Amino acid sequence: MSELNATHNAKLRSWVASANALGTDFPIQNLPYGRFRAAGSADRFRIGVAIGDQVLDLKACGLIDTDDMNALMDAPGDQRQALRKALSEGLREGSPQQEAWAKALSPQSSTELTVPCCIGDYTDFYTSVHHATTVGKQFRPDNPLLPNYKWVPIGYHGRASSIIVSGQPFTRPQGQTKAPDADVPCLGPSRRLDYELELGWFIGRGNAQGQPIGIADAEQHLFGVSLFNDWSARDIQGWEYQPLGPFLSKNFASTVSPWMVTTEALAPFRVPFERPAGDPQPLPYLDSSANRALGAFSITLEVLLQSAQMRAAGEAPVRLSMVNAAQAAYWTPAQLIAHHTVNGCNLQPGDLLGSGTLSGPEAGQAGSLMELSAGGKQPIVLPNGEKRTFLEDGDTLILRGWCEAEGAVRIGLGTAFGTVLP
Amino acid sequence: MSELNATHNAKLRSWVASANALGTDFPIQNLPYGRFRAAGSADRFRIGVAIGDQVLDLKACGLIDTDDMNALMDAPGDQRQALRKALSEGLREGSPQQEAWAKALSPQSSTELTVPCCIGDYTDFYTSVHHATTVGKQFRPDNPLLPNYKWVPIGYHGRASSIIVSGQPFTRPQGQTKAPDADVPCLGPSRRLDYELELGWFIGRGNAQGQPIGIADAEQHLFGVSLFNDWSARDIQGWEYQPLGPFLSKNFASTVSPWMVTTEALAPFRVPFERPAGDPQPLPYLDSSANRALGAFSITLEVLLQSAQMRAAGEAPVRLSMVNAAQAAYWTPAQLIAHHTVNGCNLQPGDLLGSGTLSGPEAGQAGSLMELSAGGKQPIVLPNGEKRTFLEDGDTLILRGWCEAEGAVRIGLGTAFGTVLP
Repeated sequence: MSELNATHNAKLRSWVASANALGTDFPIQNLPYGRFRAAGSADRFRIGVAIGDQVLDLKACGLIDTDDMNALMDAPGDQRQALRKALSEGLREGSPQQEAWAKALSPQSSTELTVPCCIGDYTDFYTSVHHATTVGKQFRPDNPLLPNYKWVPIGYHGRASSIIVSGQPFTRPQGQTKAPDADVPCLGPSRRLDYELELGWFIGRGNAQGQPIGIADAEQHLFGVSLFNDWSARDIQGWEYQPLGPFLSKNFASTVSPWMVTTEALAPFRVPFERPAGDPQPLPYLDSSANRALGAFSITLEVLLQSAQMRAAGEAPVRLSMVNAAQAAYWTPAQLIAHHTVNGCNLQPGDLLGSGTLSGPEAGQAGSLMELSAGGKQPIVLPNGEKRTFLEDGDTLILRGWCEAEGAVRIGLGTAFGTVLP
Repeated sequence: MSELNATHNAKLRSWVASANALGTDFPIQNLPYGRFRAAGSADRFRIGVAIGDQVLDLKACGLIDTDDMNALMDAPGDQRQALRKALSEGLREGSPQQEAWAKALSPQSSTELTVPCCIGDYTDFYTSVHHATTVGKQFRPDNPLLPNYKWVPIGYHGRASSIIVSGQPFTRPQGQTKAPDADVPCLGPSRRLDYELELGWFIGRGNAQGQPIGIADAEQHLFGVSLFNDWSARDIQGWEYQPLGPFLSKNFASTVSPWMVTTEALAPFRVPFERPAGDPQPLPYLDSSANRALGAFSITLEVLLQSAQMRAAGEAPVRLSMVNAAQAAYWTPAQLIAHHTVNGCNLQPGDLLGSGTLSGPEAGQAGSLMELSAGGKQPIVLPNGEKRTFLEDGDTLILRGWCEAEGAVRIGLGTAFGTVLP
């Protein structure tokens, strides 16, 4: 488990002035990785680190010699720590690298960012017990939380090819749906299009097929985290999902934020993982003292909506909900990795583990419209009087995330946003 | 839809003598693609075509200039047809290329084959109504075939990283299971390890995200087919699969055969796609006159088992079942592609669509032990007196497949086999 070191020192300031601004997502204590190129160019994407409102080109400043993010993610922990240390020292005020590295900076506003690595396999979990209970009530009123939930970190495979980067719009999906009172299904655009507020955990080093990763070693395989929105068509889902799970209701698009905040950067924001009183303790392969002590990550997440009408009127996005990931999740990332590999399944660098929709126990903490509108029965009223049960064409949905802790500098995950096209 | 041409002529003979042998899987009318290297070497895998008991190196004979199978699969239909024509002409008796190409041949017995392309995303369907009904009875006695089955080609996402090539053994998975009479689940090796007889359909050209593929164009995106065994741990599946579908019960390993038999090679073996009388006709996006006329493929499939004891005694594998894919499948490959993309999901070259377990209506036509042993209640007795409900350590499970039709030369898919390690 990564520990606090000089790179987390709250007193550190960078010679990149914008990195010292109050409220920046990317102070020198963060140093998240992404892939960028000059906006409008057809260049190969290069590996960069976000610092304030700039991107540092890691190859241009001689720290790495590759454009392959997955290769970088595959590096052993000591190499990753060494790279973080070199970045922190070179970007500090008074660093001898300042003059050389200044030439390797580009304003983020003049760059195009892409999905931060090549995602081989994408698995989506279902870690929020509050989400599972609320949604379960809508699909199975008599049986909302299934008997396996508190034992098995429920997960399923998702579609990797349709994961897009923040900012990229997508078309409202069409699909088969069947109204409860209809004799036969029909094909048409989804009328219950929803978002899902998630974290996306990225795998660093992989494991060989047939070799499970024990929970004590699991975090050595965890590279970092992004914001993740697993757009969902609830009407398609309701008709297709039995008996093998969601398929076309999910795989038309998922949006990931462009920066991977590393496990090392998250060290100051670790919190205990605790089961509610009366709940069973996890089986031994999902349990460790380290996981209980500091296995969870305190990340505040916020969802905002801006309709086309709001955008036209210059009105700011409105907050739909806010939740802390550590309070929402019933399983830690280490438990997800230990579970995913217990059968010998091989994870590879760049694989993505979605947390599943992160909802808290309170009304304003729900991570989807399905929950916020009670399955479409209770519309949300926006400040301009518009109503929403599900997403309308032209809606922009924005996820934000950040970490705060006593004695630590706030770091952010940035944003993941997307707009629904007709 | 690919048509019969000179490459299918039953009179064609090759200067590669083994390609003319009665019963070979790889006569000159077949020409399937795979990736190979010299056995025991650490060379890069190269693209080859199986001909008799040999492999032809396509780069060495100047037909292509790449080792990237996915790039070859991405080629437009006319280029694929031209390559097939060039191969057929060059391998014919009397061909002027014989002397040069003979140097590009290696015996298959001296080569190592791998997974035939880089599989980005793997989707598993559930196309056999007989399998769905039989298995449904075991999981949901009152409700075996769900109301969506005859309308929706049910599918879900699988794990691409753990797909292995025929011949590679794998370790019996461990996982959480819960006995019906137990209070709590436990972790241990699966005791209900099964195989699934499937076809694996490979995608050639992809589609852009947001751009569905209409059923009339679907087969232009279909590259070819392999044998596919989606090993399954039924006890893990039973405990984990609600509400989001199978996960660790499937993703520890899947075995694919090394040769992709192209859609073009399958042209003589096309048959009408017919719905049983009284069943609903598919929605328009899943229906076309061409699909009804010749949308299905007549491929005979066979499952054989050889236990460790049989192997030690030199006893040949015993047949467990035999079925024709066209009789087993309720949906054609074109329908799977049209459905998969109707919501805008993007398919990419090398993506794999599993047919799902292919079972026929008769007792000896079931594609899994779960069906053959009635959920473990009726053991199968092997010729040497051993009994099987599910797979034992040391068992080798073998899939075979071939096509026969009046006036056409028999072609084969080869074999896909794997052995269960303790």
